[in-house]
Amino acid sequence: MRTTRLPYVTFHEDPAEAETVSHRLMLRGGYVRKVAGGLYDFLPFGARVLRRVERIVREEMDRAGAFEILMPALQPAEMWEKTGRWEKYGKELFRLTDRHDRSFALGPTHEEVVTELASGLLNSYRQLPVTLYQIQTKFRDEMRPRFGLMRGREFVMKDAYSFARSKEEGAECYRIMQEAYFRIFARLGLSVRMVEADTGNIGGYSSHEFMVLAPSGEDTVVFCGSCRYASNVELAGAATHCPLCQAPLERTTAIEVGHVFDLGDRYSAPMEAGFLDPDGRETLFHMGCYGIGVSRLLAAAIEQSHDDAGIIWPTAMAPFAVAVLPLGGRDAELSEKALRIAGLLEERFPEEVLVDDRDLRAGVKFADADLCGFPIQVILGEKGLRENRAEIKVRSSGERNTVDLSALSEWIADHLGSGGAVDTGRPDA
Amino acid sequence: MRTTRLPYVTFHEDPAEAETVSHRLMLRGGYVRKVAGGLYDFLPFGARVLRRVERIVREEMDRAGAFEILMPALQPAEMWEKTGRWEKYGKELFRLTDRHDRSFALGPTHEEVVTELASGLLNSYRQLPVTLYQIQTKFRDEMRPRFGLMRGREFVMKDAYSFARSKEEGAECYRIMQEAYFRIFARLGLSVRMVEADTGNIGGYSSHEFMVLAPSGEDTVVFCGSCRYASNVELAGAATHCPLCQAPLERTTAIEVGHVFDLGDRYSAPMEAGFLDPDGRETLFHMGCYGIGVSRLLAAAIEQSHDDAGIIWPTAMAPFAVAVLPLGGRDAELSEKALRIAGLLEERFPEEVLVDDRDLRAGVKFADADLCGFPIQVILGEKGLRENRAEIKVRSSGERNTVDLSALSEWIADHLGSGGAVDTGRPDA
Repeated sequence: MRTTRLPYVTFHEDPAEAETVSHRLMLRGGYVRKVAGGLYDFLPFGARVLRRVERIVREEMDRAGAFEILMPALQPAEMWEKTGRWEKYGKELFRLTDRHDRSFALGPTHEEVVTELASGLLNSYRQLPVTLYQIQTKFRDEMRPRFGLMRGREFVMKDAYSFARSKEEGAECYRIMQEAYFRIFARLGLSVRMVEADTGNIGGYSSHEFMVLAPSGEDTVVFCGSCRYASNVELAGAATHCPLCQAPLERTTAIEVGHVFDLGDRYSAPMEAGFLDPDGRETLFHMGCYGIGVSRLLAAAIEQSHDDAGIIWPTAMAPFAVAVLPLGGRDAELSEKALRIAGLLEERFPEEVLVDDRDLRAGVKFADADLCGFPIQVILGEKGLRENRAEIKVRSSGERNTVDLSALSEWIADHLGSGGAVDTGRPDA
Repeated sequence: MRTTRLPYVTFHEDPAEAETVSHRLMLRGGYVRKVAGGLYDFLPFGARVLRRVERIVREEMDRAGAFEILMPALQPAEMWEKTGRWEKYGKELFRLTDRHDRSFALGPTHEEVVTELASGLLNSYRQLPVTLYQIQTKFRDEMRPRFGLMRGREFVMKDAYSFARSKEEGAECYRIMQEAYFRIFARLGLSVRMVEADTGNIGGYSSHEFMVLAPSGEDTVVFCGSCRYASNVELAGAATHCPLCQAPLERTTAIEVGHVFDLGDRYSAPMEAGFLDPDGRETLFHMGCYGIGVSRLLAAAIEQSHDDAGIIWPTAMAPFAVAVLPLGGRDAELSEKALRIAGLLEERFPEEVLVDDRDLRAGVKFADADLCGFPIQVILGEKGLRENRAEIKVRSSGERNTVDLSALSEWIADHLGSGGAVDTGRPDA
């Protein structure tokens, strides 16, 4: 992709509205733009990162045997009344009426709709267990929307729901989803910790949160340095020692990016949703629900990984893994050579290469590439071009390599993994 | 994919609620399920078709040089007031207030939001022209939601917006999008006609609709048998003869699946959105807007292509291009052989093959495969398996072929196109 064809717009002053690093860097790097409180446009770079995260989430959900569906955002109030949440959910639930004065919720989550769906579709124990998921826009009327994508009023979420025959089968669905979550966060290049959590507005028997460890996180997690105990601070309370092994507890700030719940019959009971067991008896579904904050992940990744110059994307999340910076200067022949090399790289790695062919000073191109966080920067400077060499800067380490032009494409392919693709293929089974 | 792992649920009685063929077949084939009037769940087959259409639309938009973005569904009322549409749009606009009593629209379209976005991002003539697009859920409070996905209150749409320096450059953006539309519909396997249309609620200078010709379409298109004149009936009025060549006009029913508008400054003027021209003068954007009803396309494809037995999907849209029906019968060795062959096909065409391994009669499997509309059906019957042969039924023609098992995989690869993929790769530039 050539930057001259893109609306590649960066800002080098700090936006007044930004309260956190990720918010500031996403605005400055041209990833998002504010529409109103808690509502953002995703600009081309931001939309690319979003699609990359969605793809990895989708692949791992499919691999875990879950099936993609899509439920409406508009949900009839009656469904929420059945489970008591129409009253209980409070002001965070956006409510509206249609032209016939019927009430609807704008879904912040989909337990009611999916339970009714399963109830109509899964009638026999032979069909179970089944896990369904969707990647969808959700709505939440936050009292104080803030921190950009971290606490928005409209956000992209992956939500999944499992329907099982028994508590034990439900536990197995829960375990499979937990494993899928660890794979997703590993592929995205994030450092994540799973902690015990309370069940809050969703309800059910037990739950775990997946936390991206970051100094600026709004949440606090508590963990034991000696054993595997980990919990969010709400559940741990004021405890100073591990309830399992009595060792002192440690605390660190984090950002919640995923939450899984063992729901039991919290929804299937009030909605009378179940199946016929082998003896022909009506039995309630044992349910689980599993969320990932897809758009929030963008902010969490930046909170976890940045420096004074800007974003440092994990390779799998970057809008482009490679930024080529042709700086041929005023020598027409060298300029042409730089663009030719850039073109070849673009051809070999069409999904991964951004060529900054803007007519701007080297310093501006460097600053923008660092700000936007491209993991590999290929610098085609005048001196190097004369000697048939390129300089490669690795954004995360700052490491610089001089590479012969004939070996450039292979160097990048090696760095991106086999075939030159950045984790875009399906994972091995 | 094995059907025993899927919630593969079909219905063999006609649903009372269904008013059109596509609505009936999508409900019976387990593609969608009604949540409330004009609101549907997409079940696993339906979601797969949706994703396939989205992928082709996305590829062709990228190929045409447009950039993907994502704007919020919630839109501040003030933006709509600026363009006069908050009053004018009427009851089809879902309106709601947040916890602070501020008013929002649930976007049926995004001219206001995208114009403000462009105004903040594109300041110089050097950055133009730019076309931005998104694939997003839209909302419309239809007076009479009906016909399933044809006239829903929540639907998936691709909307694109071009920003140009002049009328001429705007016309060029418009032409590029028209061409992209023809490629999209061709790749989807749909027979589409472009007709002149009025500009309605969107406004602007001129517009064209893309119509899928189908006997049950709600719209009527008027066209001349002698020249290229074609128009929707609203624009043609009661005319019986071609305004260009005076030949008699013909009429046929159709379904609108796309609409492109040359907006001029309909939005950029009231929103004061523009750029600096080479002489430093403030100039208004010349805009275009371009929609495709992504979820409606599913219904339109079925209206165009079905028979008494069910859906006949164009190959590129089918949830699976190949259904393998192992009918080994009671002979354990043959049953095993059938599943082994099915497994090999599944391995070679992982995205395209559905293996119906349910323990059901052959007749039920045949009926379900026809109802769901899988383009290629590979029948592994007892007699054939003994003689190392499979029967292949082509859903669209009804044609049946007997193929040696050793040649089966190649036969399918040939039929699906090179590499075995159904139009999933990027198009040649």
